[in-house]
Amino acid sequence: MRILIVNPNTTAAMTEKIGRAGRAVAAPGTEIIAVNPADGPISIEGYYDEAFSVPGLLAEIAKGDAAGVSAHIIACFDDTGLEAARCISQAPVIGIGEAAFHLAAMLGHRFTVVTTLSRSIAAIENNLLKYGLASRCAKVRACEVPVLSLDDPASNAAAQISAEIERSKQEDHAEVVVLGCAGMADLAARLSEYHGLPVIDGVASAVKLAEAFGALGLKTSKTGAYAQPRPKPYLGSFAPFAPR
Amino acid sequence: MRILIVNPNTTAAMTEKIGRAGRAVAAPGTEIIAVNPADGPISIEGYYDEAFSVPGLLAEIAKGDAAGVSAHIIACFDDTGLEAARCISQAPVIGIGEAAFHLAAMLGHRFTVVTTLSRSIAAIENNLLKYGLASRCAKVRACEVPVLSLDDPASNAAAQISAEIERSKQEDHAEVVVLGCAGMADLAARLSEYHGLPVIDGVASAVKLAEAFGALGLKTSKTGAYAQPRPKPYLGSFAPFAPR
Amino acid sequence: MRILIVNPNTTAAMTEKIGRAGRAVAAPGTEIIAVNPADGPISIEGYYDEAFSVPGLLAEIAKGDAAGVSAHIIACFDDTGLEAARCISQAPVIGIGEAAFHLAAMLGHRFTVVTTLSRSIAAIENNLLKYGLASRCAKVRACEVPVLSLDDPASNAAAQISAEIERSKQEDHAEVVVLGCAGMADLAARLSEYHGLPVIDGVASAVKLAEAFGALGLKTSKTGAYAQPRPKPYLGSFAPFAPR
Amino acid sequence: MRILIVNPNTTAAMTEKIGRAGRAVAAPGTEIIAVNPADGPISIEGYYDEAFSVPGLLAEIAKGDAAGVSAHIIACFDDTGLEAARCISQAPVIGIGEAAFHLAAMLGHRFTVVTTLSRSIAAIENNLLKYGLASRCAKVRACEVPVLSLDDPASNAAAQISAEIERSKQEDHAEVVVLGCAGMADLAARLSEYHGLPVIDGVASAVKLAEAFGALGLKTSKTGAYAQPRPKPYLGSFAPFAPR
Amino acid sequence: MRILIVNPNTTAAMTEKIGRAGRAVAAPGTEIIAVNPADGPISIEGYYDEAFSVPGLLAEIAKGDAAGVSAHIIACFDDTGLEAARCISQAPVIGIGEAAFHLAAMLGHRFTVVTTLSRSIAAIENNLLKYGLASRCAKVRACEVPVLSLDDPASNAAAQISAEIERSKQEDHAEVVVLGCAGMADLAARLSEYHGLPVIDGVASAVKLAEAFGALGLKTSKTGAYAQPRPKPYLGSFAPFAPR
Amino acid sequence: MRILIVNPNTTAAMTEKIGRAGRAVAAPGTEIIAVNPADGPISIEGYYDEAFSVPGLLAEIAKGDAAGVSAHIIACFDDTGLEAARCISQAPVIGIGEAAFHLAAMLGHRFTVVTTLSRSIAAIENNLLKYGLASRCAKVRACEVPVLSLDDPASNAAAQISAEIERSKQEDHAEVVVLGCAGMADLAARLSEYHGLPVIDGVASAVKLAEAFGALGLKTSKTGAYAQPRPKPYLGSFAPFAPR
Repeated sequence: MRILIVNPNTTAAMTEKIGRAGRAVAAPGTEIIAVNPADGPISIEGYYDEAFSVPGLLAEIAKGDAAGVSAHIIACFDDTGLEAARCISQAPVIGIGEAAFHLAAMLGHRFTVVTTLSRSIAAIENNLLKYGLASRCAKVRACEVPVLSLDDPASNAAAQISAEIERSKQEDHAEVVVLGCAGMADLAARLSEYHGLPVIDGVASAVKLAEAFGALGLKTSKTGAYAQPRPKPYLGSFAPFAPR
Repeated sequence: MRILIVNPNTTAAMTEKIGRAGRAVAAPGTEIIAVNPADGPISIEGYYDEAFSVPGLLAEIAKGDAAGVSAHIIACFDDTGLEAARCISQAPVIGIGEAAFHLAAMLGHRFTVVTTLSRSIAAIENNLLKYGLASRCAKVRACEVPVLSLDDPASNAAAQISAEIERSKQEDHAEVVVLGCAGMADLAARLSEYHGLPVIDGVASAVKLAEAFGALGLKTSKTGAYAQPRPKPYLGSFAPFAPR
Repeated sequence: MRILIVNPNTTAAMTEKIGRAGRAVAAPGTEIIAVNPADGPISIEGYYDEAFSVPGLLAEIAKGDAAGVSAHIIACFDDTGLEAARCISQAPVIGIGEAAFHLAAMLGHRFTVVTTLSRSIAAIENNLLKYGLASRCAKVRACEVPVLSLDDPASNAAAQISAEIERSKQEDHAEVVVLGCAGMADLAARLSEYHGLPVIDGVASAVKLAEAFGALGLKTSKTGAYAQPRPKPYLGSFAPFAPR
Repeated sequence: MRILIVNPNTTAAMTEKIGRAGRAVAAPGTEIIAVNPADGPISIEGYYDEAFSVPGLLAEIAKGDAAGVSAHIIACFDDTGLEAARCISQAPVIGIGEAAFHLAAMLGHRFTVVTTLSRSIAAIENNLLKYGLASRCAKVRACEVPVLSLDDPASNAAAQISAEIERSKQEDHAEVVVLGCAGMADLAARLSEYHGLPVIDGVASAVKLAEAFGALGLKTSKTGAYAQPRPKPYLGSFAPFAPR
Repeated sequence: MRILIVNPNTTAAMTEKIGRAGRAVAAPGTEIIAVNPADGPISIEGYYDEAFSVPGLLAEIAKGDAAGVSAHIIACFDDTGLEAARCISQAPVIGIGEAAFHLAAMLGHRFTVVTTLSRSIAAIENNLLKYGLASRCAKVRACEVPVLSLDDPASNAAAQISAEIERSKQEDHAEVVVLGCAGMADLAARLSEYHGLPVIDGVASAVKLAEAFGALGLKTSKTGAYAQPRPKPYLGSFAPFAPR
Repeated sequence: MRILIVNPNTTAAMTEKIGRAGRAVAAPGTEIIAVNPADGPISIEGYYDEAFSVPGLLAEIAKGDAAGVSAHIIACFDDTGLEAARCISQAPVIGIGEAAFHLAAMLGHRFTVVTTLSRSIAAIENNLLKYGLASRCAKVRACEVPVLSLDDPASNAAAQISAEIERSKQEDHAEVVVLGCAGMADLAARLSEYHGLPVIDGVASAVKLAEAFGALGLKTSKTGAYAQPRPKPYLGSFAPFAPR
């Protein structure tokens, strides 16, 4: 089984990190292909960056689909472009945010999300509402470390995230923690051990869900919201993306 | 006061129709500027089309902002790109979907939405949930007339929409009807008179709300979800859109 | 266009203040008529006061309707008597509470309400639930200044409200603030500037919405909840109010 | 224990019927006092009638309180004036609507309400939302028999209600039925037997809840929403109602 | 009228205390029968204990039903086995948790629950959601005193509970407090007086509701969720419990 | 990896069928152990049967835990005993109902559940509410075929289920169908192909989720709702189950 993971930002180092996180949990027969678009923002922090990551993301999904991958993963915690990607793919498409939320919901009564910047909280809260899981989330918290600073030792990211987890234990009575950024994938195990509760990374979660859908032969329903786009012209620079 | 209405699809005839609908209700001192992007889908029917209308839409918003308009309107009923537009503008941004929902909520106990194609129902339902108004909507219905066929006499669009309104009166006990597409703007008055209840067009609604925000001096809050995007490079073809 | 603003309490000074707030934002062609009933409580602080403000309020609405005003505004933040007023009027009726909530919902992800006394919190929370907008409100707060002390320098009202706004920024992550009393109308601009986020006054909001409904030709639906009252006798002192 | 039942409309025949329904289930030591105001509508059908029943209702509550009754019941299914009554009474106050809803919720998974006219549906739905029990109600239905026609043989009221119950069994999968008008009190037993499921009358339900609160020594909390009204002048004809 | 109260744990001293609490509020003609199963946990603290209290509980319900009691009460605040008990009984079955919640909802805008251990919070929150009353509950709090330590002077239980009530007044703005364990029944009156707001014990509440259902002739609906179990074999040690 | 699937009813033929369904999708290295308790109902149809399946189920979970399995699956669609099982296990525990719901939520906008008997609808609806996914479920339907008749050709089960799916497409606009009984596991593929949308079996879904949790090293949080039971005596026949 081949799984395409699309990092929707354009920072190759982050794509590699995401690929490693995916491969670390992939089953023996699973091939992980981690890519990112050539065009778009170097990190996604808020609604505006999201908007410009989607066309490139969808191009990668389309290429993966043409190449016959069994499942797609969108490796931005906001699940950027998820619904649009479902419309054009024959294979299932999984967002790392939803993947983490669904698994978290089966491991404890309430979970807390710790994301990067507070400007991203609204998008995550809206996703939780859309997915139905808002009542299972005690709080969405931000550690105020920018995405591309997560790997910068000076950012003290792990300590900031850990402090926020500590607060979520004290104040939210969270039983499970979800890490709210693909760039935090490498921290989950350590933070889980330190805090004594499950700490969930969406990339790894999504890989296992992708394998699950593949093994079960389950694909996105095409009878409603995710129907194949109607053929029509797209004008100008987006003409190549027009559905046929 | 100058109000920019962006039709996020690339069909100029529809932009003109939308402009007319806006001008028909604008206050004496209001100038309506109706534009559409050069790049993108000729109509928006589902999540995929939405994705490719957003970059062009945001470019128009940015131009309008630079030109000092007092408010922006996004004239696609899915409120495509609304949050992203709010991030980059100093002026308020209003979606025609939300405009119609908020006004409908003040005119009756429950409203029904009649949109074009059933593939658009999910996006509208998710918006209602996000805005908080899902409990006020009895049902989102589709008349199954494609966007660009609304003006085609052969589509029998007015009759199809009217039949759906009749069903919503019988089955949903709707007290108010919201027309779920910018292309239906010209039908509201006639359908309202025929059916004996308020029938709301989002374009006209948004123009009056834009004037209201302008007169009140109210602008989008920049302290959280809609904070100005952080400066960062965008690679490739989207480089010109990078926030500075 | 003539808009009737009914202050449902019997304090003429407050009616004048409300009238000024309305006129300050009214469009050139709009005439604002601000009245209050002769009978009833001098201020509305809780459910009991509300009950005795409604008959006089409805009498004013009926007079305004007979005089042919284009829209009615109920200038008590609890939206006292709103549904009953809608039943008897041919014109739209807007509560200042709902007006502020709906506008606030288009300016930020979450808003906070700052009202006068904590005994009024329940009614406001129940209204938010009824309107559908409870999920958009982070918290309803009280500054514990009575309605008629708002203008008393000794009450230190502006400072109390400002302190509550500061708390809402810190604790609720509110992006927008709604002032929860008609008597706070004069403070909005100053507090907005000081705190750097939109601070919304319901009186001004309602005036612009009333103008919007007027311009759009939209009136309350009479097919369900707000149907014209059935003709029947009212006994005793309320006989003159009996629907015919 | 003395329980005051206030029929908030001014039709004495209905008050007598309500008194009989209350006495039929009262415990040996319970005295039922059934009254109605002298002033106000002869029946309550919609929001406007509600508004003019409240002052008279509150006057009766105040008299009952002064006379030392142990509990008050408001015998209109819309629970007209319930919150205001709670503010001025030392004793608990129970609405027949809420009484029926709470008992229904303990007898089956979902209940249906059958009320008189469809114009009353919105108020009942809003009450269910306010009480928290909306998720337990499958549907609010109207049999379209006016309140004062319930006892008119020509109205065929029992058959109309029975037909609506039949529909609620078929379409709503209701397990319990709540009769949505005080004037239906005499029909509950017969309809229950005929349809083979619990059919609940609010008047009888409220009497037993009033006895329960009395026996338990439980009274309305006065620390928040239902705090004693603040002393203040009421002007004009309502001056006698001013809180002291 | 005979009411069976089943304490689902196996601690006879607690059963006696519960019986006393029930008898203290029972009407003159009411006989309270308080029992506990012979088999099962000595206290119920969390989901696992719950599971092993249910078979014995259901056996007691069945015996009570055979003996012709008018109503059953399940005297564990988690309402353990409530739905199953409803399936096999002809008489109404009331959980002390739901009894307290429903009464609390009629005495104030919001209530807080103070239970024993934090591990019980999730079950109570889930019940509130199931009953529909989650929106009426400000918070479920734990005083961290184990069930069987409530009567141990060394546990300082009353003081711990009182401190938690104080916090709920300050932080949750609770207007009503619900005691979240049958073993707290004796503390309600004292805490209510001390804190100046209604403090509700579920055992007493359930007794009065049981009397209410008995007097009203209302029984559990058998047409859906609580239908009589289908006859079928149960194997092994549970064979005697098989429905016939 | 060893996964224990517990069929909580005592019908060995059904356990075998469930085991086959699990093995059909298990990864190469996964060993599926399918068991059922010796004691309890031969099928689970409603709350009462559920109650008597739980002790035996928990005994099997405890044995599996002692034997070191990596995950447990509870193969009854009501997710019988799920929370209790989580309390005593070191490994994750997955209900087939929740497994199917979570996967369905990632494949379409709304799903419909088709279960066996209508008496089971309430438990499933309550689970959806508890899990947070009620808003994602269009309807819970029953085909009215008893659990043990699913394999009886005379029951015409497949046709009954298929007819209900057809109705869900027409009336609920369901995009995904969840089969609401472990005994329907063999029908999913055929019905999916016939109806042209994803049809999900919970047993297979749970196996893949169990493998996912195993591979990710994620276990149930033990810090709150699912804390290890406190050591205490259980009296009588349940003494062996007492937590130590």
